[in-house]
Amino acid sequence: MLRPHLSQDRLISALSGRTVDPPPIWLMRQAGRYLPEYREVRAKAGSFLGLCLNPELAAEVTLQPLRRFDLDAAIVFSDILMVPYALGQKVEFVEGEGPKLEPVRSAEGLARLDRAAAEARFAPVYETLRLVVTELPSGVPVIGFCGAPWTVATYMVEGAGSKDQAQARLWAYRDAASFQSLIDLLVETSVAYLLGQVKAGARVLQIFDSWAGSLPENEFARWCSTPTRSIVAGVKAEAPDVPIIGFPRGAGAQAETYARETGIDAIGCDTSMPLSFMRETLQARLPVQGNLDPLLLLAGGEPMEARVTTILNTLGGAPFVFNLGHGILPDTPPEHVARLVELVKGKA
Amino acid sequence: MLRPHLSQDRLISALSGRTVDPPPIWLMRQAGRYLPEYREVRAKAGSFLGLCLNPELAAEVTLQPLRRFDLDAAIVFSDILMVPYALGQKVEFVEGEGPKLEPVRSAEGLARLDRAAAEARFAPVYETLRLVVTELPSGVPVIGFCGAPWTVATYMVEGAGSKDQAQARLWAYRDAASFQSLIDLLVETSVAYLLGQVKAGARVLQIFDSWAGSLPENEFARWCSTPTRSIVAGVKAEAPDVPIIGFPRGAGAQAETYARETGIDAIGCDTSMPLSFMRETLQARLPVQGNLDPLLLLAGGEPMEARVTTILNTLGGAPFVFNLGHGILPDTPPEHVARLVELVKGKA
Repeated sequence: MLRPHLSQDRLISALSGRTVDPPPIWLMRQAGRYLPEYREVRAKAGSFLGLCLNPELAAEVTLQPLRRFDLDAAIVFSDILMVPYALGQKVEFVEGEGPKLEPVRSAEGLARLDRAAAEARFAPVYETLRLVVTELPSGVPVIGFCGAPWTVATYMVEGAGSKDQAQARLWAYRDAASFQSLIDLLVETSVAYLLGQVKAGARVLQIFDSWAGSLPENEFARWCSTPTRSIVAGVKAEAPDVPIIGFPRGAGAQAETYARETGIDAIGCDTSMPLSFMRETLQARLPVQGNLDPLLLLAGGEPMEARVTTILNTLGGAPFVFNLGHGILPDTPPEHVARLVELVKGKA
Repeated sequence: MLRPHLSQDRLISALSGRTVDPPPIWLMRQAGRYLPEYREVRAKAGSFLGLCLNPELAAEVTLQPLRRFDLDAAIVFSDILMVPYALGQKVEFVEGEGPKLEPVRSAEGLARLDRAAAEARFAPVYETLRLVVTELPSGVPVIGFCGAPWTVATYMVEGAGSKDQAQARLWAYRDAASFQSLIDLLVETSVAYLLGQVKAGARVLQIFDSWAGSLPENEFARWCSTPTRSIVAGVKAEAPDVPIIGFPRGAGAQAETYARETGIDAIGCDTSMPLSFMRETLQARLPVQGNLDPLLLLAGGEPMEARVTTILNTLGGAPFVFNLGHGILPDTPPEHVARLVELVKGKA
């Protein structure tokens, strides 16, 4: 059984249900293209996937934002498509176009996925985590993560990002049993992957369900909530004290059911989630995380400062983690991030 | 003051707050590419915009689905970009790519929009409505519509459909006053346009806010709810008895505030809205419309039939209009639509 060190980590305190003042802050995609030092390392690595698979460079970019900003966590530099990659699906990241995969759309495609080979392919991510942990100050955990099975499946089936995830949804409507076998494979692989990350030093986990919003109610329950619950249960069986944040982007009014049914410790909220709903419906049940508009961080200035104040005033009196509602945009000026962190930390 | 005829229309009854059994049904984009007879007329018209501006052909495609299916309303064949077109913005529809507009991103761009010329440019839509009304059986109203100012503004500013409406949102963050003047112009033009449609025979109106889901709380209130409330108030001042359906796609948990604050008579719900939220939170206040997944209509068969039954059982006992959660997809087999209408009408 894996147990994290007892600690005074501000993030872990908040995720354990304590009100931390000022609240902890980290930012989705805090290691990324908005930082010139990231772009330098990225150029060295050759490709995005090459960077994910190079532990020394990946550890370096993981740590970069913590050298600039007073953040309360690192998040391992990796990608949610590491799981299809580990299962043997051909994955590449085309500059300016996003990920391209050889689509899996049939029983034969499914049969070619190779669960046995996955652990060896995850090894570089584990190594990145081990390197990061040695460099982090105490009290600052590193977050491990994976994509939720539904979201990962949409990329595997579409072969790319897509507007409405139609191919994956159609497969699920037309042949729910075979789609279920893909989801089951992803659940099993993700549990092993998250536990591997915990063993390598991750003390908090996040499950990214970026395309949760494209599913109607029954499908949301079947393809988002249920597999997420299975992952949470699988991880908790081995690592009961590692808090897990679920991030069902676009879930809207379905976020309540998700929070209730998955067993997650905290819920990440996207930008469109009303603060009143976060406070009254979600935070009444579990710690919430979010949800500044990344575009407002890019714009900066008075409108950003006003919103940060509103978010802190609305959510700061109960268990809360400050974050964006989605990842940092590449054109964001790093000084806006510095200002945001100052504001949240009350050093304004 | 414009008053519709008193009538026993099933749609108008439901929108007036009565429980109609079986519930009325119409389908977003019911006149469209999934129908071979539509594709024939479309080919004759040359371009999509040419079809919208040709009253005889537009009336013909408006009526086509009612010849095949026992639907409770027609919806005038037109497009939400008729408003920017009428304001003098260059609008074209590129085959396979969607709309292209000359983007408006500055005070100069705004100043070039010509409100005075708009009514003359709306005339073909009014003529389409007049032609449609003469052909419709009594008890079947024709629905007029416009895009909500926020959604229309996103196309005007982006120059096309976009993933996250970043240009429009950035403008609104950086210079709210000038963005407000664009929204105000759209409110004023939309009120005149909807009243023109009522004068030409529309007896129900729908306001499509397709991109409502991209806005955080404060912006949702300012750019979605408030302008919609102004449009509703402007229309109701002249045509108090014409029911108005609001369709804030992607509003998620914000739909409740929208329903409360805009003055709409009924709310259209997209596919991701849980039926329990529709029933308990929305239908408790006003009639609801929706929300079968268009992809499930495309897929057809037992999964579709099961969902239709669930929707009817959950929402049919109170004021309700059956619809999809978004427009019919072009690859939908027309026989699936026929089956859906039979199911809803209880002729299964």
